Amino acid sequence: MNNYQIFIEYDGTDFVGWQIQKNGPSIQEVVQIALKRYFKKKVILKGAGRTDAGVHAYRQSASFCTEEKIKSKNSFINSVNFFLKKYRISIIELKNRKIDFHARFSAKKRIYKYLIINREGALSIDKNRGWLIKKKLNVNSMKIGAKILIGTHDFSIFRASTCGAKSPIKTINKVSITQVKDRISITFESRSFLQQQVRSMVGCLKYLGENKWSPRDFRAAIESRKRSKCAPPAPSYGLYLFDIKY
Amino acid sequence: MNNYQIFIEYDGTDFVGWQIQKNGPSIQEVVQIALKRYFKKKVILKGAGRTDAGVHAYRQSASFCTEEKIKSKNSFINSVNFFLKKYRISIIELKNRKIDFHARFSAKKRIYKYLIINREGALSIDKNRGWLIKKKLNVNSMKIGAKILIGTHDFSIFRASTCGAKSPIKTINKVSITQVKDRISITFESRSFLQQQVRSMVGCLKYLGENKWSPRDFRAAIESRKRSKCAPPAPSYGLYLFDIKY
Repeated sequence: MNNYQIFIEYDGTDFVGWQIQKNGPSIQEVVQIALKRYFKKKVILKGAGRTDAGVHAYRQSASFCTEEKIKSKNSFINSVNFFLKKYRISIIELKNRKIDFHARFSAKKRIYKYLIINREGALSIDKNRGWLIKKKLNVNSMKIGAKILIGTHDFSIFRASTCGAKSPIKTINKVSITQVKDRISITFESRSFLQQQVRSMVGCLKYLGENKWSPRDFRAAIESRKRSKCAPPAPSYGLYLFDIKY
Repeated sequence: MNNYQIFIEYDGTDFVGWQIQKNGPSIQEVVQIALKRYFKKKVILKGAGRTDAGVHAYRQSASFCTEEKIKSKNSFINSVNFFLKKYRISIIELKNRKIDFHARFSAKKRIYKYLIINREGALSIDKNRGWLIKKKLNVNSMKIGAKILIGTHDFSIFRASTCGAKSPIKTINKVSITQVKDRISITFESRSFLQQQVRSMVGCLKYLGENKWSPRDFRAAIESRKRSKCAPPAPSYGLYLFDIKY
């Protein structure tokens, strides 16, 4: 048996998310169908992160086992991408892995990016790819909020009611905010995140940017550990699964 | 009479370019129709740069005269964008200008960016937005080539046969190449460019990246001043009119 890892890039706009669901096409389903056409046999993909509907990925990672040995990485990538060509999904890397490798459980770090565009005018280039916020944001206050998030905390406030994680305690290694003209980009790094955690954190950072919350209010909200204290989560279309490290 | 300047963002994929043409929809035409709906009168836009079919813009600039005074910038931007909403075009800024201001002739600097994605896998997020080059490029050689371009030169080699400029001599202030993972971004700054100059320069820089040309070959090609020595111009869909300075 051979164990392979692939990195997958996609625009999540037209999909119900990574995971196979009954209500529409998922990335997992579409890639599995392409792999079945390649191998002439069903393959089960184990994805590293379950991105929601509308969320994009620069480097989603997934692993799968197959009896067949892949001889040429480039011809594998090109053949599977040919089967995917009507979708905005592409395989960008293939790696041989030891048999015990699992895209989800072996991951050491997940990096997400969130794109806010802070201006009056509607989006055109970044339509479905960023969150348009018209009110001028106080980015300094957002940066203070970002620092509050770093470290090991009980993140119950950011946890969706459907989240299956055993514990709400997570360690965030990095939150950085950079602004270039009207584009505000927020990067989050952690071994793993709770369901909807990144979008919930971005929703709260927006409250700071709008001066609805002071950094002190933000800290109090986190310490309450109540989901009801959370700001509305940021929309999925501004979120990118940026990379996964092993 | 009032003279206004607007900055316009667009994804050029579905258009024949900036300028009005008989063979399909242009950015200029579509924006003029939206302005006519706003002012209830025809308005003529003077654009700063004539982008080709497929070329995108983060900040195209255009000016127009109108008898009507615009009272609220935000309501102007939102109303015109409402009329543009079925297109990937949006007005992102409005400025009052003195009567002698002209978006094209008053421009002091034009900044273009070109995006190359250097990997095996097909594009999905950047489909129609970047040039996929599968062969690994020698970015150091491209950087040496970039330096050769800076300064005042006879750029006849990069000039399309249909170019209407009086002289092939131009001054390039900056060419910089940055690479982040598989994305190579090339920035060009000049007061003005010849027709197809940027795409022609990128085509030649690719020859350097592929080691088809040494920096010495590149210099000799430029010095020949013969269009026939130019590499094939890079495709339009990787090019972005990034900003215009006044």
